[in-house]
Amino acid sequence: METLSVAKSFDGTQGVYRHRSDACLCDMTFAVFLPPQAKEGPVPVLWYLSGLTCTHQNVMDKGEYRRTAAELGVAIICPDTSPRGENVPDEKDNWQFGSGAGFYLDATQSPYAENYRMATYIAEELPTLIAANFPIDMQRQSIFGHSMGGHGAITLALKNPGRFKSVSAFAPIARPMVAGWSRPAFEKYLGSDETAWRAYDTVALIEDGYRLPELLVDQGKADGFLDDGLRPWLLEEACEKAGIPLTLNMRDGYDHSYFFISTFMADHIAWHAERLG
Amino acid sequence: METLSVAKSFDGTQGVYRHRSDACLCDMTFAVFLPPQAKEGPVPVLWYLSGLTCTHQNVMDKGEYRRTAAELGVAIICPDTSPRGENVPDEKDNWQFGSGAGFYLDATQSPYAENYRMATYIAEELPTLIAANFPIDMQRQSIFGHSMGGHGAITLALKNPGRFKSVSAFAPIARPMVAGWSRPAFEKYLGSDETAWRAYDTVALIEDGYRLPELLVDQGKADGFLDDGLRPWLLEEACEKAGIPLTLNMRDGYDHSYFFISTFMADHIAWHAERLG
Repeated sequence: METLSVAKSFDGTQGVYRHRSDACLCDMTFAVFLPPQAKEGPVPVLWYLSGLTCTHQNVMDKGEYRRTAAELGVAIICPDTSPRGENVPDEKDNWQFGSGAGFYLDATQSPYAENYRMATYIAEELPTLIAANFPIDMQRQSIFGHSMGGHGAITLALKNPGRFKSVSAFAPIARPMVAGWSRPAFEKYLGSDETAWRAYDTVALIEDGYRLPELLVDQGKADGFLDDGLRPWLLEEACEKAGIPLTLNMRDGYDHSYFFISTFMADHIAWHAERLG
Repeated sequence: METLSVAKSFDGTQGVYRHRSDACLCDMTFAVFLPPQAKEGPVPVLWYLSGLTCTHQNVMDKGEYRRTAAELGVAIICPDTSPRGENVPDEKDNWQFGSGAGFYLDATQSPYAENYRMATYIAEELPTLIAANFPIDMQRQSIFGHSMGGHGAITLALKNPGRFKSVSAFAPIARPMVAGWSRPAFEKYLGSDETAWRAYDTVALIEDGYRLPELLVDQGKADGFLDDGLRPWLLEEACEKAGIPLTLNMRDGYDHSYFFISTFMADHIAWHAERLG
């Protein structure tokens, strides 16, 4: 693991690191914020998964998470959203597939199956690397994310019961199997048999019996992707049927941007910090 | 004036606007955050001047000013740092001169004198535009900035006594007349007679009798530009001789980046808000 940069911020440290990923067969970059409490001993951790087109950097620059994370003593990890590089197959002009659009799944179709293994990367490889290199208490993990990253956070929490103390999302893609902006990607990554897609779809996972103790979601009512891509009402229906307590805050006037996310970032971190103990 | 974007954030609105500048003879872009209190009536305003290479956008993305500005009911205006465009003379590969490096002065030398008139733009043209288009109480203005923008904020406050209720800076260039990264720019903008440079140098202005009621400065001790470009001890000396109360916070471990600025942003806004009443 190579340190690309470290800067002091809010009395903690914001670092950016690169390592060779065995899961994705390429170099991967990620950001870690360590709160000042990490100088004294291991701290709990909150994973933030980003949305389409993002790298680790968007939320690091615009997410405004450091103040609250420093106050409450929580580390924040921001991974990249896909494998990248000259040797990674991609569709350069397609922002909904390939680089920046890993959808937090393990691809099964050629030529993507070799590199696009973000589910394994986020759930297995990166936690092992983090545990070995940072003063983080891996018994106290939570996860959240935005849009495609909200989808990633919820599906990973559903499929790894007990791993995360809590899960929340900003404007998550509730049902990528049917959303216009994710169906083509799912077909290329996972093939045409849609039963295989259910392992990476929040509503389908809940229908198939996967459960969460509770879920917090914030969603802007002025989000341009609300009707076509996000459809939080499908999540609401599924949670209601399954008896999963969902707090869905529909926020007047807010869009899909970091101007929205940063507004409610402190609320989400505080909510997770309570559950991280 | 044209609205480029408006997004809700922290219950206020973050807007970006463009207008034709008579001072700079080009289109200029700026950002305005209006806190929620602006819905009820005019609010006080805090001008933020950015540093070398920046546009209005850097602090808008990374400055983390909206939470505190919304809480305290202060508008934040973030102008660009220079004229720009095909018809504006520039040195493309020089980050310390031309585009992104206006130094908040009015150039007198050809071919720069026509466009590089940032002192007039910030002190006269933009306030007139703001007063005409936004619910802002122009009797309650304060100003701050970073690096070259800290220099801009302090020199503008010195030369416009009574205009600003308060002035502060993050890592300001205290003495651009002598700093290696600004001397060449001053010569190109203002000519070789250094007496003309004194109107745009904080220490020289104080030596020449200009005064401030008080001054707040935060400076990172791990700032790579400390010795060559910034030299806060020159500011300290000048303020002490002139009897200007200076609060200079030297911050262990912090660098010159927005990871530093954002850490102390809330402190500065709260300090200004007290003085804005």
